Amino acid sequence: MSILPHGALSLSSLEEQWLQPGVKGLPISEPLRQGAIGVQGWNVLHGDTSYPVAVLKLSALEHNLSWMRDFCARHGALLAPHGKTTMCPQLFGAQLAHGAWGITLANSVQVRVAHRFGVRRVLLANQLVARSDIRALLHLLHEDPGFECIVLADSLAGVARLAEEVNLHPLARPLPVLVELGLSGQRAGCRTPEEALTVARAVAGAPGLALAGFEGYEGLLVSNDRAADLQAVAAFVEQLCGLVLEADDEGLFTGAAILVSAGGSAYFDLVAQGFARLHGLSRPLQPVLRSGSYVSSDHGIYLEALAELDAREGRPAGEGLRPALEIWSVVQSRPEPGLAILSMGKRDASHDSGLPLPLAMHRPGPGTPHALPPGCSIARMNDQHAYLRLPEGPVRAQLQVGDLVGCGISHPCTTFDRWPLLLAVDDAYLVRGACNTFF
Amino acid sequence: MSILPHGALSLSSLEEQWLQPGVKGLPISEPLRQGAIGVQGWNVLHGDTSYPVAVLKLSALEHNLSWMRDFCARHGALLAPHGKTTMCPQLFGAQLAHGAWGITLANSVQVRVAHRFGVRRVLLANQLVARSDIRALLHLLHEDPGFECIVLADSLAGVARLAEEVNLHPLARPLPVLVELGLSGQRAGCRTPEEALTVARAVAGAPGLALAGFEGYEGLLVSNDRAADLQAVAAFVEQLCGLVLEADDEGLFTGAAILVSAGGSAYFDLVAQGFARLHGLSRPLQPVLRSGSYVSSDHGIYLEALAELDAREGRPAGEGLRPALEIWSVVQSRPEPGLAILSMGKRDASHDSGLPLPLAMHRPGPGTPHALPPGCSIARMNDQHAYLRLPEGPVRAQLQVGDLVGCGISHPCTTFDRWPLLLAVDDAYLVRGACNTFF
Repeated sequence: MSILPHGALSLSSLEEQWLQPGVKGLPISEPLRQGAIGVQGWNVLHGDTSYPVAVLKLSALEHNLSWMRDFCARHGALLAPHGKTTMCPQLFGAQLAHGAWGITLANSVQVRVAHRFGVRRVLLANQLVARSDIRALLHLLHEDPGFECIVLADSLAGVARLAEEVNLHPLARPLPVLVELGLSGQRAGCRTPEEALTVARAVAGAPGLALAGFEGYEGLLVSNDRAADLQAVAAFVEQLCGLVLEADDEGLFTGAAILVSAGGSAYFDLVAQGFARLHGLSRPLQPVLRSGSYVSSDHGIYLEALAELDAREGRPAGEGLRPALEIWSVVQSRPEPGLAILSMGKRDASHDSGLPLPLAMHRPGPGTPHALPPGCSIARMNDQHAYLRLPEGPVRAQLQVGDLVGCGISHPCTTFDRWPLLLAVDDAYLVRGACNTFF
Repeated sequence: MSILPHGALSLSSLEEQWLQPGVKGLPISEPLRQGAIGVQGWNVLHGDTSYPVAVLKLSALEHNLSWMRDFCARHGALLAPHGKTTMCPQLFGAQLAHGAWGITLANSVQVRVAHRFGVRRVLLANQLVARSDIRALLHLLHEDPGFECIVLADSLAGVARLAEEVNLHPLARPLPVLVELGLSGQRAGCRTPEEALTVARAVAGAPGLALAGFEGYEGLLVSNDRAADLQAVAAFVEQLCGLVLEADDEGLFTGAAILVSAGGSAYFDLVAQGFARLHGLSRPLQPVLRSGSYVSSDHGIYLEALAELDAREGRPAGEGLRPALEIWSVVQSRPEPGLAILSMGKRDASHDSGLPLPLAMHRPGPGTPHALPPGCSIARMNDQHAYLRLPEGPVRAQLQVGDLVGCGISHPCTTFDRWPLLLAVDDAYLVRGACNTFF
């Protein structure tokens, strides 16, 4: 690690860095310049990488980036995809290149990472309350006044903390604050519109702060009852819109535009539709969606939710978001006829919203992988092992020690954070480059 | 990142590296040399760090390192602590300085990391089957013939793969191989002693390989029934010892010593006792324990298991292993009387063996933290949030937005891997230095 120049770094600086042996997935015994990864001719299916390895399918990423750009254009929505999903500067760059309005992040450390790699507008979708973290953000805004960061508040105490620090370290422009509307029994956020308006008035009245708008996270409403969810999400979005209208009536907004934001990765269509119905404001509306998982999608929770979203949108089946993230590991043991032990575990794949889905097997070398038959499943994971159960049938004889198994994952957020480096592959699993994460 | 010199790096190279803003826990707005962390005067309780922050309590680490050294001395056992727990070069160094015989690791990438930071003997306690990973290890052994790495096999196919690669890339010394004895329905490993002996004969007969001994992992026997566990562990260790005797009778060992290894973090006393009963071999025995979690212990699964171990050992209560790892976060929202939302989540603390345990609260500034009353618990975590439930009582009025909450964790392995950098603190939570992890 060298002393990096202050401020933003280009993405190409990542290509220029030297990777040391000891990075998961990388089959190197000598230091390698990251930019040279794509010309090594490594093919995951040929057994060229180290295993386990995390791969991002370039065609799926491209498709998803364009899909979301088109979705937002169709709905007149802006996109600030949640960057905490991937914390990957290359993907932030690709999202911005595909028209994203900004990047959403979850804490001040993540904001720093995004800023380092050239992100110019951040929605910090979390209460910022620790004085050290408020100061770190104010320092960044002083240092780089062109950088935009919109923060959240859901309490008078939170507003007071922000106001106090801004008072101590005045900014050239007021700090834009979104007031968070929450849900009873759920995470942060004001529990009623009245409470949210009280907090909004405090923001509007605090020197150095400006009320930017309102924000909520309808993703907390996702349950097993889709019909109930749809109603609840629509009602929540309506509440948010109502807040915007009331605050505007009261003259609490002083900026050039009014921001309203919501949008996890399951119901962002309903959010966009709700926001599109919001009219009659004193200034232009910026309706911002924050879905982050669309970029990689998955083979689990989101694949299903997004298929339903596509159906609601009346889009042709098969053109929806595509799973881009897979983990390939090797069969390290076949200790029983119905059991294969894979060289991946909780260190490599998410396990908080379902275990990985075994998709395909391949004997290292040329050719294409074979889909695993129905009944194959990951029954359990330890830190570094997965237990692949095999149903009765030919697969039990076919799958041998040393074979590769490709798995899809459920919940990209808790898989990305296990890989400092993911390999970008084409449809033949030829390695074309790499993506870094900063967790 | 600079081009690092080939081969081992000293730990002091980590102290010399420049850390950039954007590392979790670090409250920096300018690059900082890692070695300067300990002289900043930061105190976690004063609100000086970024939150969440992971801290390692130096006094607990010191105590645990000495405890384990004494335990091994008492039992005549060698220690190769599992490095996958922490993947922390500074802790590897401390473990070796406290008499560890080597470091256990889980895959070839982890071996590379340990080698880079000066570890000279590794037990790779996993089948090494991918050709790329076998080659990477052989490359390392060619490059640095003094480096020792003992590998595992549990099948004839596995032995053949190792033998083939060693044949293609001959080593100065035979590659030492442990044969793994497994457990029916469990992870890797031969299912019967007969099968293990067959694999052992194949190792002994393969040019370029040498049978080093036998290995198993009794940690897979941990259940909710302690009495049954104790019997099962003792029987398993006896089986391992029986295998050693049989293989020795057959003259399968050719090295200077015979290695036998087991030992997770719950029953390593039984393992050590079982190994101590193994006599009458043709050459010296090296009984190797592999417990990795002892170094940090935890406030959950291991704390309980280790208290029982201490009782079995007849050691004085209160002198056992101490939890060294805590996560401190900030109350970012108090949206309901019985609910506080903390600025930490699945990205920061393990959730696979119980959720974090809230220990103490503190208003940033001087003084000592207050223990949280009984009934406080983390009910749920999202990626970046924890839901702290508060019982009826004064705590509901006391705990405010901006207060700090310290949590213990259960299962160190899945917490260490969420922190590239942990801060080492003294008993007053003054930051004295930092530990790096390489996941």
